[in-house]
Amino acid sequence: MKPTCKKQQRTMCAQYCISFADVEKAHVNIQDFIHLTPVLTSFIFNQVTGRNLFFKCELFQKTGSFKIRGALNAVKGLTPATSEEKPKAVVTHSSGNHGQALAYAAKLEGIPAYIVVPETAPNCKKLAIQAYGASIVYSEQSDESRENVTRRIMEETEGIMVHPNQEPAVIAGQGTIAMEVLNQVPLLDALVVPVGGGGMVAGIAITVKALRPSVKVYAAEPLNADDCYQSKLKGELTPNPYPPETIADGVKSSIGLNTWPIIRDLVDDVFTVTEDEIKYATQLVWERMKLLIEPTAGVAVAAVLSQHFQTVSPEVKNICIVLSGGNVDLTSLTWVKQAERPAPYQSVSV
Amino acid sequence: MKPTCKKQQRTMCAQYCISFADVEKAHVNIQDFIHLTPVLTSFIFNQVTGRNLFFKCELFQKTGSFKIRGALNAVKGLTPATSEEKPKAVVTHSSGNHGQALAYAAKLEGIPAYIVVPETAPNCKKLAIQAYGASIVYSEQSDESRENVTRRIMEETEGIMVHPNQEPAVIAGQGTIAMEVLNQVPLLDALVVPVGGGGMVAGIAITVKALRPSVKVYAAEPLNADDCYQSKLKGELTPNPYPPETIADGVKSSIGLNTWPIIRDLVDDVFTVTEDEIKYATQLVWERMKLLIEPTAGVAVAAVLSQHFQTVSPEVKNICIVLSGGNVDLTSLTWVKQAERPAPYQSVSV
Repeated sequence: MKPTCKKQQRTMCAQYCISFADVEKAHVNIQDFIHLTPVLTSFIFNQVTGRNLFFKCELFQKTGSFKIRGALNAVKGLTPATSEEKPKAVVTHSSGNHGQALAYAAKLEGIPAYIVVPETAPNCKKLAIQAYGASIVYSEQSDESRENVTRRIMEETEGIMVHPNQEPAVIAGQGTIAMEVLNQVPLLDALVVPVGGGGMVAGIAITVKALRPSVKVYAAEPLNADDCYQSKLKGELTPNPYPPETIADGVKSSIGLNTWPIIRDLVDDVFTVTEDEIKYATQLVWERMKLLIEPTAGVAVAAVLSQHFQTVSPEVKNICIVLSGGNVDLTSLTWVKQAERPAPYQSVSV
Repeated sequence: MKPTCKKQQRTMCAQYCISFADVEKAHVNIQDFIHLTPVLTSFIFNQVTGRNLFFKCELFQKTGSFKIRGALNAVKGLTPATSEEKPKAVVTHSSGNHGQALAYAAKLEGIPAYIVVPETAPNCKKLAIQAYGASIVYSEQSDESRENVTRRIMEETEGIMVHPNQEPAVIAGQGTIAMEVLNQVPLLDALVVPVGGGGMVAGIAITVKALRPSVKVYAAEPLNADDCYQSKLKGELTPNPYPPETIADGVKSSIGLNTWPIIRDLVDDVFTVTEDEIKYATQLVWERMKLLIEPTAGVAVAAVLSQHFQTVSPEVKNICIVLSGGNVDLTSLTWVKQAERPAPYQSVSV
C-alpha cells in the first residue's frame, strides 16, 4: 500500500538542493578528517526535563564546531584527483565558525583561503582564522560593503565562493551529523538543532527523514532572530527584517532559498527562546556538564528546557540535542552574572 | 635475582596507611556508583608539548570532581550490611569538592552529613552542599574555630569525621583513578596529578607502583603552596608555613602524616607552577578542549606545559594528566582577561 499522507507525498515530490545520497557521499568524503564526536548524557538534565537527553558534542569537533563538516565537503568537492584541477582559492564572508572551518579545510587541501571579515570583528576570531593560515580581508559593517569586497576578492583571486549555509555541499556535509547520531542513539525519538541559515537543520532533516522518518526534527531559534519560525508560520520564506540582536552569534543569519524548502517540508516544529533562556541554558551546561558550549549551542538546550517544549508528547522520550560548537570569547563573559536562574532548577542534585 | 635498588627496597619495607589491596577493595565498593570517566586527547596539546597527552576527565565525575571516589569509599566502609550498624552521621570541614562529595556519598547511604564551612565561603559552594541534602555548620575563618566547631558537631551528632585527604579509605578511593587509567592508556609512561593534601597522588602512587612500577608518578603543585616540593627537597614533612594564596583552591592544604611517607617514597618528582602558568593552562584547556576544568586541574596541565617539564626524558612519551574537577565559580572569572599568553602558543592550529 502506498503512503497516502499528504506531507509524505510532498516530501517524495519536492525538489531540494540535495538528496540523502549527497549526505552519504559527504560522509565518505570527510569521515577520515573529522572527529566522530561523542554523545554524552546528564542525570540532572534528564531529571529537569523528564526525558532522556543525549548531547551530540560537536563542540569537540575539529575547529570547535560542526562547520568543518560542510566546509570540508565543499572544498573536497572542488578538488578532484589531479592537482591541476584545484581551484585557485576559496572565499567566504564569515568571521565566525564557518570562516575558521573553511580556513582549516582549505589548508588541508592546500588551497589559499580568503575570509572577508568586518573590521569590527573580535580580535580572537581574526586570530583564529589567521592561525589556520587563511588571509583576512576587511570590509565595512554593511551588507553592501561585505558583498562588494567579497566579489572583488573572488575576481582578483579567481576564487570560488563557499556560502556558509546555502551551498548544497555544505548542507550535505552538515547532514552527516544525523548519520552519526542515528547510530549512536538507537532509540532516538527526536533531534533538536539550532537554526540560523539552516544548513545544519536542513542537512539533518534530509538524512533523518530518509533513514528513519518517524524521528522528529525540531529547530531551535532565538526569539530575536525568528525568521525560521515566521517562515513556517506564514508558509513562505520570511527573512529577519533587520540584523538581529542575540547573544547566539552563530544563528543571526536568516534561512535562505536552498534551505527553506527542506525546512518547510521536513522540519517538524520550531521552538523560539528568549535571550535569558539562552544564557541560562548555556550556563547550566557549563556548570553541570562542564562543557564549554557557545551560546548558539545553548539555544537548542534552552528550547528543550522551555515551557513550550512541555507541549511535546511524552512519547518523544529520547531526544538528542546538537551542541553545535564551543568557540566562546572568554573575555566577553560579563553576561554570566546577569543570567537569571528559573526557580525550579535551583536545588536539583546531580 | 632480588632487586638491589635502594629505593625499591625502601618501597618494599615501608609501612603505609594503605596497600594496593585497599585500592582494589575500594574499586569493588564504589565502581557501580561512579562514572568510568573518559580519557580525551588533543592534537594541539600534543603539538605544543611534543608528547602524547591523555586527559582523564574527572571533571565529568559525579559531584564534578574525583573526590566522590574517596568520600564514597569511606562512607561505604562505615556502613556494613545491617542498617543498625550505620553511623549516626558523618562530618567534615571542607567547603570545596570533598564537602560536596561527602554530602552526596552520605545521601546515597542514607546517613546525615554535617559540613563545617567558614561563614565567608562563596554562596555557590554552600548551595551545592545543601542541594545534596547535607547540613551546613558555620565556623569562623580561623583553624581554631574550624576545629572547635567540628569537634562540637561530632560530639553533638555522634558523627564520624571523614578527613578530606588523610583518611586511609579516602586515599584508597582516589587510587581507583589509576586502576582505570592503566586500562584506558595501555602504553602509559607517566601520570601527572595535582597535589594538595596528597590523597589523590598517594592513592595513585600506591596503585601505579604495585601494578606497573616503571610508570612515573609526578605531582603538580602551585609555587605558592609548595609544601610537597619542600618536603621532598628536605626529606621531611614540611607543611606550608601560612595559608597559601593561590587560584587553585583545591590544593591549598598541606600534605599530612598519612600521605607523606607514600609521597616521599613513591612519587617520582614534583613540579611547581606559578599563578600565571595555572591561569594560562586552565584557559588553554577551556579554549582548545572546551572542557570547563577548575584551576586546580589546570595545575597539572601547567606542570606539563612548564619549562621545567622539558627536562623530563623524551622517552616519557605517553602522559596522562588527571583533570581533577570542574567546579568553577563562574561569577569570579575576572582573571580570565588577565591570564598572559606565552608567545609560542599563539598561532598553533588545532
